[in-house]
Amino acid sequence: MEISLATITPIGIIHSPFQVVENMPIQPKGAAEVTGEIELFPQFAEGLKDLEGFSHIYLIYQFHKAGSEQMRVKPFMDNVSRGVFATRAPVRPNHIGLSVVKLVSVDGNRITVSEIDVLDGTPLLDIKPYIEKFDHPGKTTSGWLDANAADIRNKRSDDRFA
Amino acid sequence: MEISLATITPIGIIHSPFQVVENMPIQPKGAAEVTGEIELFPQFAEGLKDLEGFSHIYLIYQFHKAGSEQMRVKPFMDNVSRGVFATRAPVRPNHIGLSVVKLVSVDGNRITVSEIDVLDGTPLLDIKPYIEKFDHPGKTTSGWLDANAADIRNKRSDDRFA
Repeated sequence: MEISLATITPIGIIHSPFQVVENMPIQPKGAAEVTGEIELFPQFAEGLKDLEGFSHIYLIYQFHKAGSEQMRVKPFMDNVSRGVFATRAPVRPNHIGLSVVKLVSVDGNRITVSEIDVLDGTPLLDIKPYIEKFDHPGKTTSGWLDANAADIRNKRSDDRFA
Repeated sequence: MEISLATITPIGIIHSPFQVVENMPIQPKGAAEVTGEIELFPQFAEGLKDLEGFSHIYLIYQFHKAGSEQMRVKPFMDNVSRGVFATRAPVRPNHIGLSVVKLVSVDGNRITVSEIDVLDGTPLLDIKPYIEKFDHPGKTTSGWLDANAADIRNKRSDDRFA
């Protein structure tokens, strides 16, 4: 039972300072100072009403430079092979990316955000408001990442998934 | 520039006690006691290695019962029309859903979760580990929801988006 979802198409483009995968912050928390702009295609601008009241938003996007689909990967934070669903690596099935970013402003069909960790030109699939009451589960554990998460803030990507 | 992403296909099916949209919890926090099972198609089972160390996971899925795409919606938590991207309503472009759920166990290609708010038979597009250091932005505001979020826990859906 594999239903093709051919109706999924980008709703906009994410602009960021990151032209190449190498040396990007690997997650938003490593990109506190980085500003980007989301260009929503004009027909979707009406859907941005009321968004500006939220301090943070989810971006769901396509890892359009991911070169393959792999079930085991060595994440940037590790040198041990992990199951791809236990990582945020781009080489996952469907190449879907997810980031929480800080909302700076909304102007027509353009959204300025900071703390962005996304490659310039990335196709955007959805925007959702970050809602603390829904999205923060309280006390959590992060498996293999707990052991070596301390230095994620300073980690940068390389071209292993391109 | 609308690139069709025809390569996005479900990687599994989400099983839950919710057979109809009516009377579902509207977000996981209203579904603390609800257990569901994710059936990953067997070819993806290898990608689940190491997932069990995480207490919570993101499910990215298709709102397969969403009947339309709307730019303005009246969310379950409100009676004012909002921009769809300022809500989590299913009638958004691309009909992509996102939930944080609690991971109970992994057994081969099957994952047991709790705090699930998803309709039975929902096509799954991706699984990601919830990583506090990446995903919790600290102090946040939730716009129109802050005013009336207190009673979300007890809200149930109706058929307005079916």
